[in-house]
Amino acid sequence: MRFAPERLESFVAAVLEGLGALPDHAETTGARLVEADLMGRTGHGIIRLPQYVPRIRAGGINLRPAITARRDTPVSALVDGDNGLGQVVMTVATETAITKATETGMAWVGTVRSNHAGAAGVYTSMAMESGLIAIYMAVASANVMPPWGGRERLLGTNPISIAIPGGVDGGFLLDIATTVTSHGTIKVKALAGEDMPEGWVVDMDGNPITDPHRANEGYLMPIGGYKGAGLNMAIGLLAGVLNGAAFGSDVIDHRDVPDRPANTGQSIFVMRPDLFRDREELEGAMDEAVREMRASGDHGAVRIPGEGASAARARQAVDGIAIPDELLAQLRDVASQLGVADDLSG
Amino acid sequence: MRFAPERLESFVAAVLEGLGALPDHAETTGARLVEADLMGRTGHGIIRLPQYVPRIRAGGINLRPAITARRDTPVSALVDGDNGLGQVVMTVATETAITKATETGMAWVGTVRSNHAGAAGVYTSMAMESGLIAIYMAVASANVMPPWGGRERLLGTNPISIAIPGGVDGGFLLDIATTVTSHGTIKVKALAGEDMPEGWVVDMDGNPITDPHRANEGYLMPIGGYKGAGLNMAIGLLAGVLNGAAFGSDVIDHRDVPDRPANTGQSIFVMRPDLFRDREELEGAMDEAVREMRASGDHGAVRIPGEGASAARARQAVDGIAIPDELLAQLRDVASQLGVADDLSG
Repeated sequence: MRFAPERLESFVAAVLEGLGALPDHAETTGARLVEADLMGRTGHGIIRLPQYVPRIRAGGINLRPAITARRDTPVSALVDGDNGLGQVVMTVATETAITKATETGMAWVGTVRSNHAGAAGVYTSMAMESGLIAIYMAVASANVMPPWGGRERLLGTNPISIAIPGGVDGGFLLDIATTVTSHGTIKVKALAGEDMPEGWVVDMDGNPITDPHRANEGYLMPIGGYKGAGLNMAIGLLAGVLNGAAFGSDVIDHRDVPDRPANTGQSIFVMRPDLFRDREELEGAMDEAVREMRASGDHGAVRIPGEGASAARARQAVDGIAIPDELLAQLRDVASQLGVADDLSG
Repeated sequence: MRFAPERLESFVAAVLEGLGALPDHAETTGARLVEADLMGRTGHGIIRLPQYVPRIRAGGINLRPAITARRDTPVSALVDGDNGLGQVVMTVATETAITKATETGMAWVGTVRSNHAGAAGVYTSMAMESGLIAIYMAVASANVMPPWGGRERLLGTNPISIAIPGGVDGGFLLDIATTVTSHGTIKVKALAGEDMPEGWVVDMDGNPITDPHRANEGYLMPIGGYKGAGLNMAIGLLAGVLNGAAFGSDVIDHRDVPDRPANTGQSIFVMRPDLFRDREELEGAMDEAVREMRASGDHGAVRIPGEGASAARARQAVDGIAIPDELLAQLRDVASQLGVADDLSG
């Protein structure tokens, strides 16, 4: 079944308000989750709501947080999320970075005591829509692989997103996990009843696992072997250790330990591109660069980061967002438990 | 044969002065090239000197550049290299970024009209030795692969380095090409008379090439498929297009077109870590994080970015830097052409 984005946003907000969230926090979380769906980042969209609910009920997320900016400077801040919803904490961090960067040229804002915040590209997009460059990094909310050469799961899918305004389709938008795949994507495969390709997950002896329901028995593979493993660790240090957030064995799996704060860390860097080139000139150069890349292959064959998200947004804004039956059943179940007026039926 | 680092530095400086470089530019280039060797980044060390010489002779590099900082702000600058030696331009850019970041908290400095600057980690290390975080990105000096799904070589090995002070061995230091391998590494294989493993280079039909002398017939593979290809493009946009430097079809192969300026672009971001955590606390946390990673595998099995470079530096500072016979012959040839007093014999 397909739903208008606004309806899904309201649904998320109603569920979270039903659980006790502040109205603006509920609304922000709905907007960020549905934005992920709109961009085609289904694994970080409304599919996450049924995961958040048991955590909230078990007291693992604080629905009435006092989110504060610590160590404030003209170019930086450390946002203490007070264990609030990750989408809310990261929205505050992103807005803080945008405001500071607009004034001073650039800003780096880290988070501590945050939670799972969903799709990386949602936050860099916010900056890009204001004409700014953005880089986002996060410590993922579960450990899924060992460091290169190690045997204990101490690293997550640690994503990075890089957004650069200009060019076709409103800008260049990279949004990748530094593992070959992510648990969100595996969850989508599981819901669709499909197998995973080899190379996504290996068991402890290095043999491929292709059943998405067995993914937790093995570990995910980093992109590019030791290179991706190193990049993954760098992201974890810059988004976690630098902020005093969890890293390594301090990272809990937010699905398995619902009653404990996760102390998730994220970092976002925002910069004014006109520090280096005037806006129109840069936009023209970005446009030319992307067109040249696109023209180097058959029509539609070349993959430009951000093109897919842009097309998905345009399509789903008209057609609505498709919700698979299994997820819809989960959402209706949550709605009925909380007495939410619109339970997405009809 | 093995040589003391100081002797190799002086050798490089003497060669460049013999060609007409300003003494301090010659010295800086020698220091950066030999530093790459010391860190074990052999592919970007003194092996590059015999490549630079024909470019310099053909007028492709300006040995008497007027390097200037344009668009100067408290947090940024665009360093116009005036087609000087890349090591010199990037040293100016890095020192500018360190000075600004020390004062304001962070700085991003881009280069335009620069040249091949060697190992990425050499520049981030300079910032790390001053207790600063650094991120370096560069448009590589030759196109080696198409964008994902394309057929024309429009992207280089576009490296990224991330340095974070603290932890064991003086800090975390990632230094990776975003291709599975780089031409520097392929050159080392060729000099050693070894084959390349499958997965490094494919021909236009996607079949592996394992002879390093045939690497130019095919193209390099990005790390992690479309993910690494996207990251590679992001680096090219942030280090090239943002600065008005070459990108895509504007990138010339600096080895094949010795008489044309390359207009290479690089970017370095430097940040004070005490914006987020006090120095001692962060160093303790970095130390703990790295030790935990290391303990997750057998002794010596876990690969921590920077450990290898640190060990190589300590070892070679004592034992000297080994120069393979073929390279030594090339260097002696250059020395004899220019009448350099110490021609590395004896």
